[in-house]
Amino acid sequence: MLSRGSIGRYSAFFASKNFIRSLSNAPLDSTKLKIISSTKPSKPKPNDQLVFGNTFTDHMLTIEWEAGKGWGTPEIKPYANLSLDPASCVFHYGFELFEGMKAYRTNDNKITMFRPDMNMKRMNKSAARICLPTFDSDELIKLIGKLIENDKHLVPEGKGYSLYIRPTMIGTTNTLGVSTPDKALLFVINSPVGPYYKTGFKAVKLEATDYATRAWPGGVGDKKLGANYAPCILPQLQAAERGYQQNLWLFGPEKNITEVGTMNAFFVFKDSKTGKKELVTAPLDGTILEGVTRDSILTLARERLDPKEWEINERYYTITEVEERAAKGELVEAFGSGTAAVVSPIKEIGWKGNDIQVPLLPGEQSGQLTKSVANWIADIQYGRETYDNWSRVVADLN
Amino acid sequence: MLSRGSIGRYSAFFASKNFIRSLSNAPLDSTKLKIISSTKPSKPKPNDQLVFGNTFTDHMLTIEWEAGKGWGTPEIKPYANLSLDPASCVFHYGFELFEGMKAYRTNDNKITMFRPDMNMKRMNKSAARICLPTFDSDELIKLIGKLIENDKHLVPEGKGYSLYIRPTMIGTTNTLGVSTPDKALLFVINSPVGPYYKTGFKAVKLEATDYATRAWPGGVGDKKLGANYAPCILPQLQAAERGYQQNLWLFGPEKNITEVGTMNAFFVFKDSKTGKKELVTAPLDGTILEGVTRDSILTLARERLDPKEWEINERYYTITEVEERAAKGELVEAFGSGTAAVVSPIKEIGWKGNDIQVPLLPGEQSGQLTKSVANWIADIQYGRETYDNWSRVVADLN
Repeated sequence: MLSRGSIGRYSAFFASKNFIRSLSNAPLDSTKLKIISSTKPSKPKPNDQLVFGNTFTDHMLTIEWEAGKGWGTPEIKPYANLSLDPASCVFHYGFELFEGMKAYRTNDNKITMFRPDMNMKRMNKSAARICLPTFDSDELIKLIGKLIENDKHLVPEGKGYSLYIRPTMIGTTNTLGVSTPDKALLFVINSPVGPYYKTGFKAVKLEATDYATRAWPGGVGDKKLGANYAPCILPQLQAAERGYQQNLWLFGPEKNITEVGTMNAFFVFKDSKTGKKELVTAPLDGTILEGVTRDSILTLARERLDPKEWEINERYYTITEVEERAAKGELVEAFGSGTAAVVSPIKEIGWKGNDIQVPLLPGEQSGQLTKSVANWIADIQYGRETYDNWSRVVADLN
Repeated sequence: MLSRGSIGRYSAFFASKNFIRSLSNAPLDSTKLKIISSTKPSKPKPNDQLVFGNTFTDHMLTIEWEAGKGWGTPEIKPYANLSLDPASCVFHYGFELFEGMKAYRTNDNKITMFRPDMNMKRMNKSAARICLPTFDSDELIKLIGKLIENDKHLVPEGKGYSLYIRPTMIGTTNTLGVSTPDKALLFVINSPVGPYYKTGFKAVKLEATDYATRAWPGGVGDKKLGANYAPCILPQLQAAERGYQQNLWLFGPEKNITEVGTMNAFFVFKDSKTGKKELVTAPLDGTILEGVTRDSILTLARERLDPKEWEINERYYTITEVEERAAKGELVEAFGSGTAAVVSPIKEIGWKGNDIQVPLLPGEQSGQLTKSVANWIADIQYGRETYDNWSRVVADLN
């Protein structure tokens, strides 16, 4: 599913060799897990003190990798600083990648992860793209499950609360030649987090940005690499100075809409002649992050929206189309999608000195579909509904 | 000089605000330096055992920075691992940048750095672009000078031998929100290195690469960020599998030649009608690293090559032009330029199944200009010649 649409000569080229690279060495093996428990388990913070990614659970998972040997012993151990040679290639050449996923305490008192197979698939693609080692996805899911289970008292309870999971891989070769890392460290840290919007949705103002370019064909914008993030902060600060919270990233002379901040972007249009609505997002052409939430939204929308009333399209669309259709009253709503907020409604887009107004429901902070999508996904995440095998139980607290 | 040609709306936009950011805090102050000496000074390795960036001198320089406080106490202390929270933003979001420069033991027994002001200017530009703190260039040059002086017995002696200096800056904020780092660490490590080509030049074969794109307008390809390096390794491995040592990076539908591997690219053409020669390199349009060696070559070539016989141009040129002019016998020579090798001659370029032959001097591994340029620069670096204030004395061993 993830790679559907991820077409073209750019992406295809990178799919070939590296996946098999680690096969000649020791595979990642969850049965080798060694657990060193913390001697001072912490108490959960009150829910209202949880700030995204600011506090972490008592333990972390680490696994070292070395060329010619493969994956070493997975260790769950007390959260602690990493000790690394200052020549380590992660500090110099951007050998780093990460994932973002969440675990939820369900209504029937289990802890589940949401579609972890998708994140692991993407993590392996990120690793292959920058010559870091790949691994067996299921084994890492099992290990992350153990890590969560180990700190299960720190998975917060309540609507919108969850455990944010941050798998990370870094190159640790400690020589300055620019080449394939021969040593790496995979680690996972977990942070109890609250709802992105504490008091319901808060729609954001975006600045459509064409002077800075987030991603390009033949680049790495579809991978979850550290490289894609630091360069986007300055344009965001600049947008903020002009009163916009995030960038709406445009690409090319056509000014295609690609992403919003660090999220995928969705727009809803309504044809004023036929009355038919269209949910649109950019296609996975190598410049778009292969978002798990994006995929989930497309999957559910295709199933749940009446095809007589709706079209769901992955296609190119431009800021000009948005501007023109807004002027014709054909812009219905818009939102970003990602793991942290699930959906983030958009109310305004600054472009060439004009502010394009994006409709919201009267007196509310989102459009109708944005609300529906948020509920669809939350119902599955919190176990109020079962969908396919999207929820994976990692601990049973009963 | 550095910013000449670094034109266009992309680059200009980023030049504005951030440079003044650190002024409200404590500036970097070399007089505060604290030195903690190693208790076991090492002996120099024999010259023939020096591998680029594999061994380091006894000491390192570290300086912490914190928002609202500014730069802390610079410390020269024994080379040792860094201890960092696994949530540090350098591991997740690519908050990292570096420089590469060299110190030389001159014929009159001094140790000099080559144009360190250029590297510091570029380091500040890199920092500003990813919202890391800027600093007073002269202060850091003084501190690096002290670091070199402290380990002066490890600066190797001999033709082509030098001390490679690696200033690095990383973001150390330990929360997972993607935002401007409020903590950073600047560190410098030094590695004694030998000549890039131990037995004289060795010309390389390049693969002209258009399926992967190193840099893009509105991106960060002109900055020395970690982000620009890891994504280039896989295309290099793929080129190597086909028998080419490096990528010749192309850009756009025109297939402009931009860089070679991690070096700037220079080509020499000769007009077969007029007999006039042209030294060409790509203009600094925001996609080209602002190489100090590149600038040095252009400066010296403009002074030393007879304008009746030579034109020196920073202009766009394409792989098609190279192919066509090679066919007409108008391609004279080509080389890459960078701190590590100074110049790296090119002998062949694979493009669309053909190998374009680049002439070399009969029985030699480079063209004539490549040789001249290497000598011009080495003479200045090793103090056989004084040029402007390109050499800065950091220690006198007499």
